[in-house]
Amino acid sequence: MRKGSSDGGRPADARPALRRWWGWGEDGHDPDLSPAAEALLRDELEADPSVRRAPARLDDLELPAPRLRPAAHASLADAVGPRALRIDRDTRVAHAAGRGYPDLVRLRAGDLSGAPDGVLIPEFADQIPTVLAACTEHGVAVVPFGGGTSVVGGVEPLRDGHESVVTLDLSLLDRVVDIDEMSLIATLESGLLGPAAEAALNSAGLTLGHFPQSFEYSTVGGWVATRSAGQASTGYGRIDDLVEGVRLCAPAGELVLEPVPATAAGPSLLELVVGSEGALGVITEATLRVRPVPEERVYEGWAFSSFGEGSEALRALEQRGASPDVTRLSDEQETRLSLAIAGAGASQRLGRAYLRARRRESGCLAIVGYEGSSDDVAHRQKRAGGLLRAAGGVTLGRRPGREWARGRFAGPYLRDVLLERGVMAETLETATTWSRLAELRAAVQDALRTSLEMRGTPPLVTCHISHVYPSGASLYFTFLARQEEGAELDQWSAAKSAASEAIVARGGTITHHHAVGRDHLPWMCDEVGELGVEVLRAVKEQLDPSGIMNPGKLVPS
Amino acid sequence: MRKGSSDGGRPADARPALRRWWGWGEDGHDPDLSPAAEALLRDELEADPSVRRAPARLDDLELPAPRLRPAAHASLADAVGPRALRIDRDTRVAHAAGRGYPDLVRLRAGDLSGAPDGVLIPEFADQIPTVLAACTEHGVAVVPFGGGTSVVGGVEPLRDGHESVVTLDLSLLDRVVDIDEMSLIATLESGLLGPAAEAALNSAGLTLGHFPQSFEYSTVGGWVATRSAGQASTGYGRIDDLVEGVRLCAPAGELVLEPVPATAAGPSLLELVVGSEGALGVITEATLRVRPVPEERVYEGWAFSSFGEGSEALRALEQRGASPDVTRLSDEQETRLSLAIAGAGASQRLGRAYLRARRRESGCLAIVGYEGSSDDVAHRQKRAGGLLRAAGGVTLGRRPGREWARGRFAGPYLRDVLLERGVMAETLETATTWSRLAELRAAVQDALRTSLEMRGTPPLVTCHISHVYPSGASLYFTFLARQEEGAELDQWSAAKSAASEAIVARGGTITHHHAVGRDHLPWMCDEVGELGVEVLRAVKEQLDPSGIMNPGKLVPS
Repeated sequence: MRKGSSDGGRPADARPALRRWWGWGEDGHDPDLSPAAEALLRDELEADPSVRRAPARLDDLELPAPRLRPAAHASLADAVGPRALRIDRDTRVAHAAGRGYPDLVRLRAGDLSGAPDGVLIPEFADQIPTVLAACTEHGVAVVPFGGGTSVVGGVEPLRDGHESVVTLDLSLLDRVVDIDEMSLIATLESGLLGPAAEAALNSAGLTLGHFPQSFEYSTVGGWVATRSAGQASTGYGRIDDLVEGVRLCAPAGELVLEPVPATAAGPSLLELVVGSEGALGVITEATLRVRPVPEERVYEGWAFSSFGEGSEALRALEQRGASPDVTRLSDEQETRLSLAIAGAGASQRLGRAYLRARRRESGCLAIVGYEGSSDDVAHRQKRAGGLLRAAGGVTLGRRPGREWARGRFAGPYLRDVLLERGVMAETLETATTWSRLAELRAAVQDALRTSLEMRGTPPLVTCHISHVYPSGASLYFTFLARQEEGAELDQWSAAKSAASEAIVARGGTITHHHAVGRDHLPWMCDEVGELGVEVLRAVKEQLDPSGIMNPGKLVPS
Repeated sequence: MRKGSSDGGRPADARPALRRWWGWGEDGHDPDLSPAAEALLRDELEADPSVRRAPARLDDLELPAPRLRPAAHASLADAVGPRALRIDRDTRVAHAAGRGYPDLVRLRAGDLSGAPDGVLIPEFADQIPTVLAACTEHGVAVVPFGGGTSVVGGVEPLRDGHESVVTLDLSLLDRVVDIDEMSLIATLESGLLGPAAEAALNSAGLTLGHFPQSFEYSTVGGWVATRSAGQASTGYGRIDDLVEGVRLCAPAGELVLEPVPATAAGPSLLELVVGSEGALGVITEATLRVRPVPEERVYEGWAFSSFGEGSEALRALEQRGASPDVTRLSDEQETRLSLAIAGAGASQRLGRAYLRARRRESGCLAIVGYEGSSDDVAHRQKRAGGLLRAAGGVTLGRRPGREWARGRFAGPYLRDVLLERGVMAETLETATTWSRLAELRAAVQDALRTSLEMRGTPPLVTCHISHVYPSGASLYFTFLARQEEGAELDQWSAAKSAASEAIVARGGTITHHHAVGRDHLPWMCDEVGELGVEVLRAVKEQLDPSGIMNPGKLVPS
């Protein structure tokens, strides 16, 4: 079943040129702000409605000269071929940062000081050991780069004591290595983008079912490296549940963990590679569980009178083994904000009237989705529906579900629009046990509000649950505030720190699916303890003795 | 919800004195061999029906003098209190070995040369750091010991270069630390035996649902340390699926991983502690997912005309998300052997007549079990039943299920009876993908047959599937052969090696739920690669710099 893996002659030039260097995705997808949304920004955030802040013009900007010494340049060009080592401005800019809020603030302001000294775009995985050997020899830091969508600074080209830094763009490692239809597993190269991976699997009647919000621009390797969760992961499982085997190319050698369904052979090395964020080596391929493409997908809306009521309903579903595949509950603020942003379309008016009639107007919207065979979907929908109703839910039918599905990848475009209006739009997330959930949510909301009010920029803070587990749930916060012009990064940092301190103080994990990267590094010690950090360091030193792999992220130094 | 954890005044003497030092469990549970079973041993194994080999008499045996130096003895007695450091004969003998076949061969022969120099039975987890510090200072190796049921040499007191070795018996760490009923998690001390853990949970209406064959004599900590799987783990999940938090007391310090339902905070340290087999430190408590006690438990028998047909039926069930909680398929040989051993009881005659009528007489028996609310069990049983029938299965009703459930923990007693008859009875297990399953099974059977026939002791080799996953299944082999008197260990070693080589050559894991211990150590390099072994070594050096923790197991030196 090993599929042919050569497709020779492809130019080393796969990164689409169309992606916006200063923001999300491609042009042409930015939403308009409804009058209701504009009113909300003005009334609640004290944002000036006339503000329009365009990003810097690339032609006006200068990049620092690449700092690769000639000997390093020659070795790297040897390793991948001269056309696959790029030092041109556009390529360096496209790899200068991830897509977190502080990244976008700096990019839009024209700060390209963080651009890598060069970008390597190898065509084959077997070129990577030579790349890493050359980087080790010449003291060059290496940043593995899949789709570049990290929101935690995971692909920022940090030197961290090294003379130079290169980005290792994996986009040409985009082959389907093997599909084992009998065992329902697929081995995919790490650079495959979400849509390409799904298309390849769909053509064999299969799906991975992994749809993070970054789906269109993130990769298989990025998902595995960051313990990604998708919008349907309550049903399909997080990427860590789906990975059964992996290849990691580290400076010290290759770690090959063949797929097995389960093993008792000691501590899990697979679970060390999953979540390794490029700091232990380069994930070149992964073997993932796949499923038949569902016959049917049904997404529907439910209303609850409060977040507490909705949260108890989701807990009841999950603990009885009746969870839908997509399980999502917006709090009162997020429900209100979504309605404002969506504007006063006909479907929304209908929905509001319905809710008002049932006294849920100021309540919470839940989206639940079922995927599978028609029989199975019907049975599960009926069972879950009964439990949701018993817990106080009112069904809103399929229209809200369809609208959610239509806009499921659109959030980051809205962030670009808000940044243009001078509004900070940032998200952060955690997970904890059901017994700690309400208290943790209140503490994070309070930390965000207090920290931003103290700076004179009162925020709007919203929250949703997007993933449920038998023992607890995720909490995903979005906060909007008028930007402090000239002090955007300080403002962000104050809010981020306050929220993170609240999370670790109340038993939440510092990240449920965004990963650690640069932004969560200060809280890794709270997360795993000092001894835990030392263990991570020992693993890193074994696999990456020179410390060239993605330095300044994940493992506190 | 933190439960009181003091129960002062308990004597440091909890290991039940009734357990047989040379075999399994307690007296009074050994099965009789039916005439059919005796005939089978005679005809197929060429075993002499008159052989009766009694174990050595403890009173006739001498133990090596304990090798603890006075300073070490004094430090350890200080650490746990003088009554909790035991060097008496009975206590040392009770901790001299695990319960694998080679352990029993040596014990029955009166070989007690491996007994530890002393046994520590601390009453509180907070005494353990002092114990480990004293052992580090005096160069004493430490073997953590839960229920002592390891079948891979996991609790053998190996010195491995250390002057002395002590066993750290955790049986007094048997407290329920916390039950969080809202989040359905329970924090249990590691020394809790299976029945005590279940009793404590049951009194809160909860169950862990973890029932390995060793259930009556194995502990929470042992399960976590060995990645245990239970008989209902297809439904409830393996212990690695159930652990959400853990405390590991290592010579370098304490690693505390608080329970969270899911996290993306880097490589999983939890998954390093799970499966650490005492070689990284002492697991003192674990937080585990629990569930409501099921309203109903239904186990039933199904017949298939062949193992291949049955295996495809289980695959269809699992890949459609319709697996029962207990899912078990015996091959033709195991089905025949089970019928012979059970004897010609009325129920068996019924079963046989039924099977003969449906041309399944020489076929395979499957046991499937459903646990949960009555509604849920009824729905799942109907759905799975339809799929099993469509795949060629014939239902045998609940009687075979009840008989299986009655004898579910009895297998190891039968092994003692067979050893008395001069018959080797050993098991080994693996797991692989569905696409490799048939080939792997044939290769292991062939390796066992060839290696034992070459020694003039033709074996009976049976196999079952006991755990199914979407991507594959476990294979559990039992082999019986006439013992080579005086060369029992060579004979075992030849068969074990041949089977293990076959497993690693064909993509199986060296162990699905028995762990690595001493017996699978030679194949760890095949399992995780040389670099993988180096990573494990780096982790061990970080947590256990003097190498005192359970040396000679898990991590090749």
